[in-house]
Amino acid sequence: MRLLLLSNSTLPGEPFLQWPRPHLSGFLTAPARIAFIPYAAVTFTFDAYADAVAGPFAELGHTVESVHRSTDPVAAVDAADAVAVGGGNTFQLLRLLYKHDLLRAIRRRVREGMPYVGWSAGSNVACPTIMTTNDMPITEPPSFRALDLVPFQINPHYTDARLEGHGGETRDQRLAEFLVANPQRRVIGLREGSLLHVTDERMRLVGRPARLFRSGTDPVELAEGSDLRADLAGH
Amino acid sequence: MRLLLLSNSTLPGEPFLQWPRPHLSGFLTAPARIAFIPYAAVTFTFDAYADAVAGPFAELGHTVESVHRSTDPVAAVDAADAVAVGGGNTFQLLRLLYKHDLLRAIRRRVREGMPYVGWSAGSNVACPTIMTTNDMPITEPPSFRALDLVPFQINPHYTDARLEGHGGETRDQRLAEFLVANPQRRVIGLREGSLLHVTDERMRLVGRPARLFRSGTDPVELAEGSDLRADLAGH
Repeated sequence: MRLLLLSNSTLPGEPFLQWPRPHLSGFLTAPARIAFIPYAAVTFTFDAYADAVAGPFAELGHTVESVHRSTDPVAAVDAADAVAVGGGNTFQLLRLLYKHDLLRAIRRRVREGMPYVGWSAGSNVACPTIMTTNDMPITEPPSFRALDLVPFQINPHYTDARLEGHGGETRDQRLAEFLVANPQRRVIGLREGSLLHVTDERMRLVGRPARLFRSGTDPVELAEGSDLRADLAGH
Repeated sequence: MRLLLLSNSTLPGEPFLQWPRPHLSGFLTAPARIAFIPYAAVTFTFDAYADAVAGPFAELGHTVESVHRSTDPVAAVDAADAVAVGGGNTFQLLRLLYKHDLLRAIRRRVREGMPYVGWSAGSNVACPTIMTTNDMPITEPPSFRALDLVPFQINPHYTDARLEGHGGETRDQRLAEFLVANPQRRVIGLREGSLLHVTDERMRLVGRPARLFRSGTDPVELAEGSDLRADLAGH
């Protein structure tokens, strides 16, 4: 398996998909036909999302075919060289993956070796469930179970900042709640501008330090560049 | 119907349930036997939650019986004079309301006139769905449909603050996404230290101004003290 799982697509003030460009360049062999999954888009159209994604990938020599333009999304994934799953709302993304019967198709192709690129919600759905999303549950998927391509949970856009004087939970408190309800799981909080590069041999953290959350122990910081296979293996 | 729907239980630096005390005092006639729903507690026990809630209500002349200590939670709700639903994780709260078959029992009693007090997650579940919660989906309820006691959605802990330099969505962006997916709904963002007092005759906003979100129009500020029945009526 080969996955590039990004915390986020874009850093403040930068063009769309700029920071990950060198990593995408090394990850995908040009020219690749990329099946794009635009289903996480809520406040903009799938067409607009597909057009926005086409440019950055074209500069790297790839072509993007959005599955929403296909009459047979499963066949579109089957015919592609790689799959890219865009961010947005995780609940809508997962609901539409189920609706178009794409979970099995993507899982099978990626397990056979097709490269998978995801950012934000697109990284969340590569996990066993979407239970560590930050998104609002604006629509109801048939299940929280997701692609289960990696054995751990990602919390994208991870931050330990908090709003002054606000009583809502911090991100760490939310993830502590997740671990009480799911003590067998491990969670990696991926800060913005970070990614996980997963292959059968290793899981490399790129960009910034991340935070690892496990039941019964304090969170620990993971150094950029390190191989996390031992930290994130198992359930 | 009579509902007191609080954004939050406690302001920073204050004792538990202090700010709502005068409003609870006017809302519940002492002595009342209150059936307490502790199911939203995740990182502390239901016993600890029940004990914490008993004190503030005892000072107002009421007794609290937590449904988790009953062998028949439905009968406990049926025998009570009022119901109080505590905050915590909304997904766990709703999952356990379904598991103990309490949705129908609470809905029936409240529609018959039993006073309902909720805070945070306990206010969210009084709405048609839990789709405007801020919580992480750490566990999976059988449905997002909730008590449907009021015809609008509440976003508790509402804030328009944002973390500097962080790429995640603001609260307003999340609620805008909700309205794209659910254009027929209205949402009231209740700031901390605020509540809605709902009766058959009116819906009064108490504490601080709130923000009303509707599809196809900009959010508007609602003044403290105003009757929101016209703003929040319908679907």
